[in-house]
Amino acid sequence: MKIPSKYIDNVVEQLASLPGIGKRTALRLTLHLLNRSEDEVVQFANSFIEMKQHVLKCKECGNVTDTAICAICANPARDHGTICVVEDIRDVLAIEATESYKGVYHVLGAIISPMDGIGPHDLNIASLITKANSGAVEEIIFALSSTMEGDTTNYYLYKKLPHDMVKITSLSRGVSVGSELQYADELTLGRSIINRQPFKIHG
Amino acid sequence: MKIPSKYIDNVVEQLASLPGIGKRTALRLTLHLLNRSEDEVVQFANSFIEMKQHVLKCKECGNVTDTAICAICANPARDHGTICVVEDIRDVLAIEATESYKGVYHVLGAIISPMDGIGPHDLNIASLITKANSGAVEEIIFALSSTMEGDTTNYYLYKKLPHDMVKITSLSRGVSVGSELQYADELTLGRSIINRQPFKIHG
Repeated sequence: MKIPSKYIDNVVEQLASLPGIGKRTALRLTLHLLNRSEDEVVQFANSFIEMKQHVLKCKECGNVTDTAICAICANPARDHGTICVVEDIRDVLAIEATESYKGVYHVLGAIISPMDGIGPHDLNIASLITKANSGAVEEIIFALSSTMEGDTTNYYLYKKLPHDMVKITSLSRGVSVGSELQYADELTLGRSIINRQPFKIHG
Repeated sequence: MKIPSKYIDNVVEQLASLPGIGKRTALRLTLHLLNRSEDEVVQFANSFIEMKQHVLKCKECGNVTDTAICAICANPARDHGTICVVEDIRDVLAIEATESYKGVYHVLGAIISPMDGIGPHDLNIASLITKANSGAVEEIIFALSSTMEGDTTNYYLYKKLPHDMVKITSLSRGVSVGSELQYADELTLGRSIINRQPFKIHG
């Protein structure tokens, strides 16, 4: 596939460098953008530069924010003694959407993944350890993906954190709420039997 | 989903405005871009503006190009008496990849689609009619998608073109080469029986 314009080819290359976007999709998106007005394309392009120039990392939790301290860390109504450790902002958004959590977060930015060349030093860990050792933290909740990488990161953090001083918990794993038992995978179902809980009547 | 940064939110909106990109994918791509260096993001962003400012439409065929006349139209070795009518550059790339076509192209830029508000006047048709009436064209090949919109556009073009002066043909439709008959859809198989061809030994 030989594109007859180096400018189009360049945009296709740039879009295809994004994860999950192939050359064909990139070309489709490029032709769509080419049909937009110059003003629209300039706005589109500038949004990326503005983001890169203005977005900060919260000094407290490491989450992306437009201010030095993010809205969650700056909120006195949140429980600053409970810290939920997540990989990135998407996990924060997912947990916030449940409206079940009133603590604060600590965003690692990545999880340990030797296959991708990501080691412990690429993660935002030091400030979590400082906070945990300060005596002001009661509980740290591990909310990483239930994968090899997530488990490795959990293990690494557990070893580094003062787990005699601070209660360390992890999200419960089990059969999804509202799902039929027969469709649950064996690992999940097995774990949900081992980690069975006292029966409680909600509401 | 409330993103805590208006700059990130803006990029997500921009990416999600592209066809086939949802909010979730847009956020994933945005976070990926945020992790790139500022230089890389500036390069990424500028590629769109450069494309919009430099890409031209070929004065002959309407295809996108970096020069006033595209490489295919400027090539004296191509047969300028045969014009293949296509929707956009992707069709040109697909046909060029077959290495079976030595004529030139005429790129409409779109096909008639009342549902999307695209009428005949949004298509690059006038210059095709001028060319067809000039007496220098022997054959015009319709190579539009085999859809309602493609058929409508074919019909409209046929009515506008001097079909007594110029031979008008269309791509053959039928069972795919190399595919098993039992998997062909009924419409295609039906058409391939009606349009059956004299048996020829190739090579």
